[in-house]
Amino acid sequence: MQQQISVVTLGIAEIARSKRFYAAGFGWQPVFENEEVVFYQMNGLMLGTWLQVSLEADMQQTANAPPCAASYGHNVPSEAEVDAVIGRLVKSGGRLLRAADAPPHGGYRGYVADPDEHVWEIAFNPAWPIDAEGRVTFGL
Amino acid sequence: MQQQISVVTLGIAEIARSKRFYAAGFGWQPVFENEEVVFYQMNGLMLGTWLQVSLEADMQQTANAPPCAASYGHNVPSEAEVDAVIGRLVKSGGRLLRAADAPPHGGYRGYVADPDEHVWEIAFNPAWPIDAEGRVTFGL
Repeated sequence: MQQQISVVTLGIAEIARSKRFYAAGFGWQPVFENEEVVFYQMNGLMLGTWLQVSLEADMQQTANAPPCAASYGHNVPSEAEVDAVIGRLVKSGGRLLRAADAPPHGGYRGYVADPDEHVWEIAFNPAWPIDAEGRVTFGL
Repeated sequence: MQQQISVVTLGIAEIARSKRFYAAGFGWQPVFENEEVVFYQMNGLMLGTWLQVSLEADMQQTANAPPCAASYGHNVPSEAEVDAVIGRLVKSGGRLLRAADAPPHGGYRGYVADPDEHVWEIAFNPAWPIDAEGRVTFGL
């Protein structure tokens, strides 16, 4: 059994508003887009941003409004880069939830909600190596 | 800017109940665990299952109850394996949301909620290659 997540799919209200956050904020390029979904090729998985009505129809489940009890982490190589990414995300339609500071377990992190209230943690975690292709390995 | 998700963190109510779903259901081995969090090493990122109260304190945000407008996909190499994984997840505390069938865009997929109502899509998608290390690439 592969320990593998193939795709993270976030329900969104509007393509353009969401794409501004991910493309202008994070600087990520879509690999595919149409009128209801945008996919981004990530580090061995896909990020999908899909109209919430379509996602709900597909999963046959009505969803509660985000923010929900989940977060998505994007790790970067320095504290300065954490602050820089958070700044770009907020300029691109994100909402600052927590300005970056040092958690008790080490490193440096802050939180930003995307325009649909999905929660991103932007972090510097020196214990978790990131390779050139963006693959992250656990470490203590 | 790396197109990279470092971690998916799911808020949970109880470690043992969640771990049964992920360890017995998916068959995934933790890489780290203590009394409030379990980490699983995935395909170039981490899956974290963290007590919801701790996650909320860290993100300084009260969360609405899942299910929320997000899903996590686990892709497998055949339709038969989709049904087998869904069966194991349901036996391990998951709740069937949609029995697997063929979506209009092709392939085969079903949905299961974990014990905390986080939504997993189990899918066979012949257009998205998966390598031996579990890394998934976009395709049409």
